[in-house]
Amino acid sequence: MTTPTTFPTVSGGVSLAEGFLAGAVFAGIKPGNESKRDFALILSQLPAVAAATFTTNKIKAAPVRISIANLRGGDIRGVLLNSGNANACNGIIGIQHGKRSLRAAAKALGLKERQLLVCSTGRIGVELPIEKMEKAAELLPSSLSRRGSRKVAKAIMTSDTFPKEIAVQVEIAGRTISIGGIAKGAGMINPNMATMLSIITTDLAIEKKELQRTLGIAVEQSYNRITVDGDMSTNDTVIILANAAAGGNPIGMEHPDFAVFQEALNFVTRNLARMIVEDGEGVSKFVEVQVNGAATYQDARKVANAIANSTLVKCSWNGEDPNWGRIMDAIGYSTARAREEMIDIYYDGLIAVKNGMKTLTPLKALRSVMKKRKFKVTVDLHLGTAQYIIYTTDLTAEYVELNKGE
Amino acid sequence: MTTPTTFPTVSGGVSLAEGFLAGAVFAGIKPGNESKRDFALILSQLPAVAAATFTTNKIKAAPVRISIANLRGGDIRGVLLNSGNANACNGIIGIQHGKRSLRAAAKALGLKERQLLVCSTGRIGVELPIEKMEKAAELLPSSLSRRGSRKVAKAIMTSDTFPKEIAVQVEIAGRTISIGGIAKGAGMINPNMATMLSIITTDLAIEKKELQRTLGIAVEQSYNRITVDGDMSTNDTVIILANAAAGGNPIGMEHPDFAVFQEALNFVTRNLARMIVEDGEGVSKFVEVQVNGAATYQDARKVANAIANSTLVKCSWNGEDPNWGRIMDAIGYSTARAREEMIDIYYDGLIAVKNGMKTLTPLKALRSVMKKRKFKVTVDLHLGTAQYIIYTTDLTAEYVELNKGE
Repeated sequence: MTTPTTFPTVSGGVSLAEGFLAGAVFAGIKPGNESKRDFALILSQLPAVAAATFTTNKIKAAPVRISIANLRGGDIRGVLLNSGNANACNGIIGIQHGKRSLRAAAKALGLKERQLLVCSTGRIGVELPIEKMEKAAELLPSSLSRRGSRKVAKAIMTSDTFPKEIAVQVEIAGRTISIGGIAKGAGMINPNMATMLSIITTDLAIEKKELQRTLGIAVEQSYNRITVDGDMSTNDTVIILANAAAGGNPIGMEHPDFAVFQEALNFVTRNLARMIVEDGEGVSKFVEVQVNGAATYQDARKVANAIANSTLVKCSWNGEDPNWGRIMDAIGYSTARAREEMIDIYYDGLIAVKNGMKTLTPLKALRSVMKKRKFKVTVDLHLGTAQYIIYTTDLTAEYVELNKGE
Repeated sequence: MTTPTTFPTVSGGVSLAEGFLAGAVFAGIKPGNESKRDFALILSQLPAVAAATFTTNKIKAAPVRISIANLRGGDIRGVLLNSGNANACNGIIGIQHGKRSLRAAAKALGLKERQLLVCSTGRIGVELPIEKMEKAAELLPSSLSRRGSRKVAKAIMTSDTFPKEIAVQVEIAGRTISIGGIAKGAGMINPNMATMLSIITTDLAIEKKELQRTLGIAVEQSYNRITVDGDMSTNDTVIILANAAAGGNPIGMEHPDFAVFQEALNFVTRNLARMIVEDGEGVSKFVEVQVNGAATYQDARKVANAIANSTLVKCSWNGEDPNWGRIMDAIGYSTARAREEMIDIYYDGLIAVKNGMKTLTPLKALRSVMKKRKFKVTVDLHLGTAQYIIYTTDLTAEYVELNKGE
């Protein structure tokens, strides 16, 4: 596995790329929280191509279903977002309300409803306050600016404690290309799309098919590699808009600089994904779990997921207890091929388990790794060459308290 | 689904059945906890047949491996048990120590090592204090009595808050047959054998093959239906010993009273399983999750497990919040066939969701169900006739605190 490429970051988020505007307003969607901007828009001033990845949950929220339908049409110009309400499990009313919100925003912008995609996050099973949103939509156009990215990143926060935003600039085919993104996460985070939203914009000229392919690769290496609580939401959405404002012909996989775009996009999504995990609800540890030597990629993933989602493993991380027995236990029930007497486990560089048994590494040394806010657990199964990495957190009493109510 | 048969219970536990003795001594296995009996024996004074079910975790503790081997030989006379140390992930030393403990107990009893099975529970990766145990084994025979069951039930407790014991007497083929059992649970409880130990004794005359089959049926309807934290342990073991002390010829499936034995055994295991869940670590709610109308049995089980193991669902139960959206979410990611618009959800008898949407049932009424210590969540998928029931708990801040260290 090669080390992922790193890029210098710049400010500007989703409104950095040429031709993109962003803004947010107060719609009062979440009762009792009217002082927070909760309704936002990201707009391309030029025609754009869009690609997206959605939750694989069989219960899909109305905004996900609407976005999937609109994406088929092409000619997408922007994304409408709200926090405070997931608009999920509201039946046909949910679809109607989602469409009404898009119609109101499109009308204010002089666009068609089908030219916008829509994302919602919040509680499931509560109807949108659609009249309030229709009214607030009229104010969206005047909120838009080239400096609006952070406002949007804040407006989509739910239990997030900080806005998540990143941007880079790279040279592609002799032109400076911007790629910027925002995300929200916090709870219900699990691989195969977390309960998370992320919007990425770029002024690269690229065709829709190529854009979808690069997004798929980037998502697999970022949002699909994070887990906080093992719950996968009904609303997960990652959208990328590319408006060709930087000029030039659309570039494809055959172009020598195409890999640069892929790497830069990977960098953007990987960093947003990390921010989501670092901001996991009530979390105190950020843990990278790497599984090496698995017989197959699927086995490596199963083991990494079993460890990262084990309640008991996560509790021991919270207690800074190098209780590797719980890791062995999770490996054993992961259903992946594993042989106890072949397994090695490391905390950062320190070997805690060799051939399935404890080593002479002093407990004190292992504990000192676990006292860090970030550390890495590496498992080597010694059965093959497949590898998988996942980013996760501990489980804390604060998490439970935060999630007792909505 | 027919309602399971209920039987009047009697005292006596595993030493109720004719010819069975039980006892426990202090071996000082867990450092700093020498005041607790931690080493126990259940013995049949007559030759017995044994059947067992073990963890499906690929990482199996030494006692599990030893018991599997000894069980092949037949002529089992008893079970040696210890708390305070799982004797798992100790390599060949673990096997050696497990066998030495059996040898010491067998010697004191005038038996052969292979006539005993062995169960351990406690921390993984710590070697048994085998010299202490060999010494304590000499005291085991004199600790045995017909009233020793409760002492054994207490000696195998780890984070359990109460000993788990039950017994019944039934008429089979004109004779009074006793069936008694003990169990321990608390943490690492998940279907397909929880982190739990359970020993059952009976004085029925029955052949090994029939005994194994009835045990399998009983376990599937009890220990495999409970989950606290979704972690499956390396040490899970259920053993049944039948010594024919009640007299008569061995009864088989063709006997009209065979079903009575199966029902009585189901009753014993079901009640011990319930006690394990009710005593889940730091738990405040006991929840029965019933899934109806699934397309297949596998689908029903997937949905029940997804709900019962969802961190967010369990947190909402803890908070007494009828947040059915999280249940819908778990159904959606369970990978079972489900159609949002067909799903109904009930809290006890109150319908919270109809056709995938909220009902007019007042939130206050739903909340009052959740304020109870025990309640039932029923999901109807309306896609078929398959059904599954699982028993689980909420997730509490206390659970996290308890599991920070060992």
